[in-house]
Amino acid sequence: MKYPGNIKKTFKTNINYRNRGMDLEALINDACKYYLENDMAVIYKKPTPIGIVEVDYSKMLIKKAYFKEASTLDYNGLYKGKYVEFDAKESKNKTSFPLGNIHEHQIKHIRNIIRHGGIAFLIISMNDGFYLFKGEDLIEFVDTQERKSIPFNIIDSKGVKLVYNYNIGINYLEGINIAYKELIENESTKN
Amino acid sequence: MKYPGNIKKTFKTNINYRNRGMDLEALINDACKYYLENDMAVIYKKPTPIGIVEVDYSKMLIKKAYFKEASTLDYNGLYKGKYVEFDAKESKNKTSFPLGNIHEHQIKHIRNIIRHGGIAFLIISMNDGFYLFKGEDLIEFVDTQERKSIPFNIIDSKGVKLVYNYNIGINYLEGINIAYKELIENESTKN
Repeated sequence: MKYPGNIKKTFKTNINYRNRGMDLEALINDACKYYLENDMAVIYKKPTPIGIVEVDYSKMLIKKAYFKEASTLDYNGLYKGKYVEFDAKESKNKTSFPLGNIHEHQIKHIRNIIRHGGIAFLIISMNDGFYLFKGEDLIEFVDTQERKSIPFNIIDSKGVKLVYNYNIGINYLEGINIAYKELIENESTKN
Repeated sequence: MKYPGNIKKTFKTNINYRNRGMDLEALINDACKYYLENDMAVIYKKPTPIGIVEVDYSKMLIKKAYFKEASTLDYNGLYKGKYVEFDAKESKNKTSFPLGNIHEHQIKHIRNIIRHGGIAFLIISMNDGFYLFKGEDLIEFVDTQERKSIPFNIIDSKGVKLVYNYNIGINYLEGINIAYKELIENESTKN
């Protein structure tokens, strides 16, 4: 799942990430690790939620468990004093992003985070680009549109295009700095 | 693991929680649920970290997995715009709280959270009381003392005693309001 580390830098702008197995999650995990190691943010992927049915306690081994549906988003943490939570979503559809990708309780959770003063967004991989799409824009779409998918032009115009960096992965903190400029700057002046 | 819901309110001050199976985690989980339902905070217990070895994909069932050591704390979320993370620890030792209860990488994680402007603490169950013990006090002890356990009198004097509430569980938000008074009040005036 890890992207190949030996790609020559000179080729990087022409890489088709998906074809090379450079999947979205791996590129975000790389960034989380980079930010942590460089003391830029404290953001982790949450463990996969499971229901444990059977454990062999003699070996402390799980013998039977099932996958639970996530009711929150996959990543959360702390950046410049702000609570940050987001999810990674890939869309194979090129013209619009199907809202079926997001569970109803995830939408509710995004509303909760925003109401309590946190930052919530999606990182959408679509048409060979990565977009930070703010929870606020998602909620607005859900609340005002009948459509069950977000047209790509809305994602492209409202979202912040994220840059792949060879050392970092998907540099989503840069995207947060742009998308939540006022919030982040307020926090920086305060501290 | 759930505490019995039919305990008469008149008896509540004399309940010995542990003997009745009212374990610490269940009482904290109850509080998280109460806060969420009453729109007071958005705080969840993280899923148990596991390493998946074998999956039966025909049934989407995990056939083999092992428990991973947690490098962060068990609960995290958002309260009044602030990032909050904490862990629940029970001490059977009555005179001091053994630091062996906290992994080295958890200490490091607590330092990270504080440095990035978040709130990190322990909820310690000890001598039939519940204490919110600030990450700052824990770090100070670790950095300045040789001892491998925190004497109970330090936990009792520096910690904030948490109140068990019949409807809520362990009312730890009240504890946060006291322990992080200035931080929380700043945030409330700002919003």
